[in-house]
Parts: sequence; C-alpha cells; structure tokens
Amino acid sequence: MKFTVTHESSNTKARRGVLETAHGTIQTPIFMPVGTQATVKTMTPEDLESMNAQIILSNTYHLFLRPGTDIIAKAGGLHKFMNWDKPILTDSGGFQVFSLSHRRKITEEGVMFRSHIDGSKQFLSPEKSMEIQHILGSDIMMAFDECAPYPATREYIAHSSDRTTRWAERCKIYHNNKEGQNLFGIVQGGMYKDLRKKSAEELVSLDFPGYAVGGLSVGEPIELMCDVLDYTTDFMPKDKPRYLMGVGTPDYLFEAVERGIDMADCVLPTRNARKGTVFTAHGKLVIKNARYAEDFLPLDPECDCYVCRNYSRAYIRHLFKANEILGLRLASYHNLYFLLKLMENIRTAIENDSFLSFKDDFYAKYGYNNING
Amino acid sequence: MKFTVTHESSNTKARRGVLETAHGTIQTPIFMPVGTQATVKTMTPEDLESMNAQIILSNTYHLFLRPGTDIIAKAGGLHKFMNWDKPILTDSGGFQVFSLSHRRKITEEGVMFRSHIDGSKQFLSPEKSMEIQHILGSDIMMAFDECAPYPATREYIAHSSDRTTRWAERCKIYHNNKEGQNLFGIVQGGMYKDLRKKSAEELVSLDFPGYAVGGLSVGEPIELMCDVLDYTTDFMPKDKPRYLMGVGTPDYLFEAVERGIDMADCVLPTRNARKGTVFTAHGKLVIKNARYAEDFLPLDPECDCYVCRNYSRAYIRHLFKANEILGLRLASYHNLYFLLKLMENIRTAIENDSFLSFKDDFYAKYGYNNING
Repeated sequence: MKFTVTHESSNTKARRGVLETAHGTIQTPIFMPVGTQATVKTMTPEDLESMNAQIILSNTYHLFLRPGTDIIAKAGGLHKFMNWDKPILTDSGGFQVFSLSHRRKITEEGVMFRSHIDGSKQFLSPEKSMEIQHILGSDIMMAFDECAPYPATREYIAHSSDRTTRWAERCKIYHNNKEGQNLFGIVQGGMYKDLRKKSAEELVSLDFPGYAVGGLSVGEPIELMCDVLDYTTDFMPKDKPRYLMGVGTPDYLFEAVERGIDMADCVLPTRNARKGTVFTAHGKLVIKNARYAEDFLPLDPECDCYVCRNYSRAYIRHLFKANEILGLRLASYHNLYFLLKLMENIRTAIENDSFLSFKDDFYAKYGYNNING
Repeated sequence: MKFTVTHESSNTKARRGVLETAHGTIQTPIFMPVGTQATVKTMTPEDLESMNAQIILSNTYHLFLRPGTDIIAKAGGLHKFMNWDKPILTDSGGFQVFSLSHRRKITEEGVMFRSHIDGSKQFLSPEKSMEIQHILGSDIMMAFDECAPYPATREYIAHSSDRTTRWAERCKIYHNNKEGQNLFGIVQGGMYKDLRKKSAEELVSLDFPGYAVGGLSVGEPIELMCDVLDYTTDFMPKDKPRYLMGVGTPDYLFEAVERGIDMADCVLPTRNARKGTVFTAHGKLVIKNARYAEDFLPLDPECDCYVCRNYSRAYIRHLFKANEILGLRLASYHNLYFLLKLMENIRTAIENDSFLSFKDDFYAKYGYNNING
C-alpha cells in the first residue's frame, strides 16, 4: 500500500491524497459506504460503482457470526463472495462486540460474548480477528481494539487504551504483513489529550501503514469531537492515511477533513435513507411529510444523481407510504451519492486551496452553524 | 393499436404476434411483470428494461386509493410518475375490489367498498374505472368486471357475467376511444361453456381492440383451466390480442400459449422471489434451505441473467438469512428474467413451429407432468 499526499490546505490541516491498494486506487479524503453484512444495504456493486464509491467497509463481527468464515473462505474471500472487486476495509469486530453483543467478558486474552443473533457463546481476540480478516481478504484490516464508552473515567480509558495498544501489537505479530492486506492501528484515549498522545505514540512506534481514530462520535458534543480530533491528528504521522471511524454527516465529515482526516465511514446515510430522511444541499428532508405529496421536484434539485434525475419527491414519498422497497433503494442511493459527491467536491476544494470557503458556503446553504466561526 | 399475427403453430393454437401501442411495440406471446403500486417490487425501470420487459401492469384499485389520481394527474400520468416510458396495462380495479376490500356491496351501478388501507368508504363503477385509467394514461385499459369466485353456481355466474357485459358496454361508451388508449373487454362465464360463449359473443359484438379471459386461475385445477381456456379462446377473434389474467408459472404460461393466449401477467414471480423461491430450468429452488449454504453455483446454472452471472446461491442464501433487501432484489430480478426469457424462447419456438417439442423438453427438465401427454 502506498499513500501520497498530493495537496495540503494552507490554512487548515485538510489534505488531498492518493491511496494505492491491491484492489485499486482511492482518492482521499473519501467517505466509505458501509456493507455490514457483505452488502451495502439495498445496493448492488454496480450501483456503488455508478456513484463512484471507491472503497466499501464490511464487518468482521457480523460476517464471523453469519455466514461464518468457512463459507467466505470457500467462496474465495469477501470480494468474490459479494461480487465487489474494488477495495474493502474491514473493521476488527471490536466495536460490535461492545455495542451489539450480550454478556461480554473482557480479559487480556480477548472478549467472550454472546451472539446478538442466536445467543451462542463466541470469542474474539486480536489473533482471531486477524485470522478472520485474512480469510475475508480485506485490503485494509483494523486492529482489534476496545471502543470505550462516553463518558468514561480517566482510569477506565487509561486501562482500556493501554490494552488496545497491547492488542495492536499482537495483531501486528499475527498479521505478519500478509501480502496484499494492510493493518491499521486504532488510536484510543477517550477525551484525554495525554492518553491520546500516549496511544498514538505507542502505535506509531509499531509502524502501521495507516492509523484510525477510534472512540469518537460516540455521543460526545461535536465541539468536543473537534477538539479531541484536532490534537489527536497532530500526534499521527503526516505520511500515513488517517481514518476517523463512524462519521457520516456532512458537518462531521467537513470537521474531520479540516483536522487532517483522510477516510471516514458510517451507516447513517443508508440507515437514515431507509427511514426516509435524505440529504439535500439545503439540509435534511423527511420524505414522508405530507408537504411532499404533490411536490414534483427531485429529492435535491441541485443533485445530479440517478435518483434526482429520474424521480420526484411525490413518487418517492408514495413508495415510502406504500411500503415499497424501491423507496428504500432510491433514498439509499441518493444519500450515498450525496456524501460521495460532497467528498469529491471537498477534494477539488483542497486542490484549489479553497477548503474553508467551500465549507462556509456549504454550511450556510445547508443551515449548519459554522463551528469554527 | 395494431395487432398482427406473424406465425401460427401448425399443431396447436399458439401464435406469434406483434402488438403496436403508443409507447412501443410488444412481441407476443408476452409475460407482463406486475407493478401493483406504480413499481414492480424492488425493481427500477432500468432493471426491467435490462431484462427485456416490454410492458408492465399496474393497478387501478391500488393507485386510486394511494397515492390517488389527483397526484398522478399532476405528475402527467402514470408513465411519468413512475419513470417508465414503455407500454403499461392497467386492470380495472374489479378484481381487487373483490379480493382485497372489505364489506363490498355490488349494485348495477357499481361497487361500494371499504379501502383495505384505511377502511374508508369508496366507490368504483365502470365510468369511475375509465376515468381513473384515462388519468393513469395506460396504453391498455381493462373494462370494469366482476371476477366471480370459484366454485360458484351457474345462476351466480350467469348473473355476474351478464352484468360484466353491461358494465363493459358502459366502459366503452365512457372511454369513447380516447386517443392512445385501448380498452379490452373481459370474457367471464366461470367454468360453464355456454356462459363463456355468451360472454365472448356479446363482448365481441361491442368490438374491443383486444379481449381478456377473466375468472380463471382462481383456484380451479389446472386441467379445468386448460379445458375452459381451450373453448373460450375459440369464441374469441383470431385477429385480436388475447390476454389471460393472473397467470405466471411456466406450466400455466405454456398451457395458455398453447390455447391461443398472447399476453399474461401475475405477481407470483416477484412474490415468490421475496419469499426466497426461484425458478430454475430444473424446477423451483428454495434458497433458504441449508443445502445451499455452501453452494457456489448460480441460482440457475443455465440462466444468463445478471444475477446468475454474478452471484452464488450461497451469497443469496446469506442475504435472505441476514434479512438483507438485496436478496429480495436479486431473487426478484432472476424470477422476472426467467419468465421473460421463457416467453422469448416460446416465441422463437412458435416461429420455428416447434412449440410442442420445446414444451415437452422444458416440462421434462423442470419436472412437470405433461398435462396433455
């Protein structure tokens, strides 16, 4: 894997880069659609390619439990199983073990937990997560970490964050630079600057090809997220890609990029779409609202996506009211396209060194308060 | 509308034809995918075009109740509302009033009923059905009829069938040959030969551009359906398209075409797909079955559709087990393609005057008993 920063913003930490992987080249900063269970919900790979998705995310925890790694191994890996031949990033299962499973027990060795599907007893550890991600064949693998809750005491975070570092070392040893797959470390440390610094420095000394920021966007105010992110990226190498986990609204993406983030992912655009909430240049729109019953404009008149070129709000509202699956499909397509296009525009703005003015214009139109004035 | 029979089978009543409408030309015999609520469930218009769908069906009853004709009128008709620019056939609402609504009351004037959506009091009549179908702008409209239950007494059928004829006359008067839209009459008469003959002759005297056979495939054995259909098509003009309503399994389609049917529709291929049952050259396949968990063949190894070229049974089974919408989409696409391709092969077989041998080969492989030996 090769990462090259091609442009740097002169008045922010935003940067424009190129990330080369075994399954293709990724222009950064990038938003990564999430395909939790080996499918980006409602979308085919062709749909994703038509909206210029460059890399998608999938989930070790979910695929481990269902269909199980045996089946994906027999399919020849996740790319072949789901028919997607571009890059895939898989998370480690760490986050889901803590957010989805029942009755988990954390030890130094790993995490015992009960499956959220059938209650069966399961175990994940740094080594097991690596073994699964090797079978999945993801281009970017994540180290097995604990995503600590918010709020949490300094003591809890210090303990958890240190263990995450020890687990990262075990991941690195097991991974052993398997060809074609790249392992990222995850910086933890909660909302404590010195702990973020310690986590980052220790992980950097392990020399990963890329680093994620974990434990943010977990319920804290956006101002706090921005603050923590700002100093955390300062502790991270400039020549390696930086990935902020679990972020997927326009404001969070802008704030992240402004602070030197290159990659982000979130289920929100597709989850919100299925609930009928879509992005537009002028803010969110709830398509089921009665006011759209006879509105023959596209979801977003400023959007040039397949959905906005072909369907009206009135039609999509009808699909939602009538519980038609096509409604979920069209809204999901639009929301993903909206974020991917936004990131494309952000990349262009960085190239032109106009990131902040582009952000200001977007915020003004969208109806956001500009966090940094 | 112009209908031309281009080939006739020498040893059956099967025929190959071309039907020209305002929105395009249809090669017959044809299967018509059903888009009940202004969408063929899970599919975009582009999906339908890519599987060579030539005409789709939609439902007056459903669209009348939701979103309502006002909205579709403002959209500029159903084609524009749903973004489908090829031919559309709409049924009259007659069948749904009897199969879906609550507490209906039939009078000579029409049918009072309660909406299956909100229980509201509604009224449909021959004139109202025509008014709605004019607004929808369907290429082929159906006369408002009563689809009588099976079994039913001769007295009930005689009475109902006569009223259907009187309603057809009222439909024709209201329709008044509105430009670009063609009204088909529906032959009723239950399982009684003389009543079928009477119904057909009276409708033919009204001179419709096409005729449907209603009241079949309503629970009667297939042998009885074949018998009734056989004599009923003899009572129908040779130079007009003949449409068998509500038929959509390979055997019913073969038997219908053999008896001179040119058009058919059914929700079954998409409904079964959403339940995980798909067509293959060797019979039905229930994709959720455990035996497919590690089966990396396509749904149907003999099928050349998008789904069979790109996905395995193991993957599609995973999607169904994980409740992923993409599973419904892929299975729906395959089932529709399967029937459309079957009809294409049937058309070729009629052109080559090899319909019966093609049918025999298909039945043997699919595992059907050959009804006519």
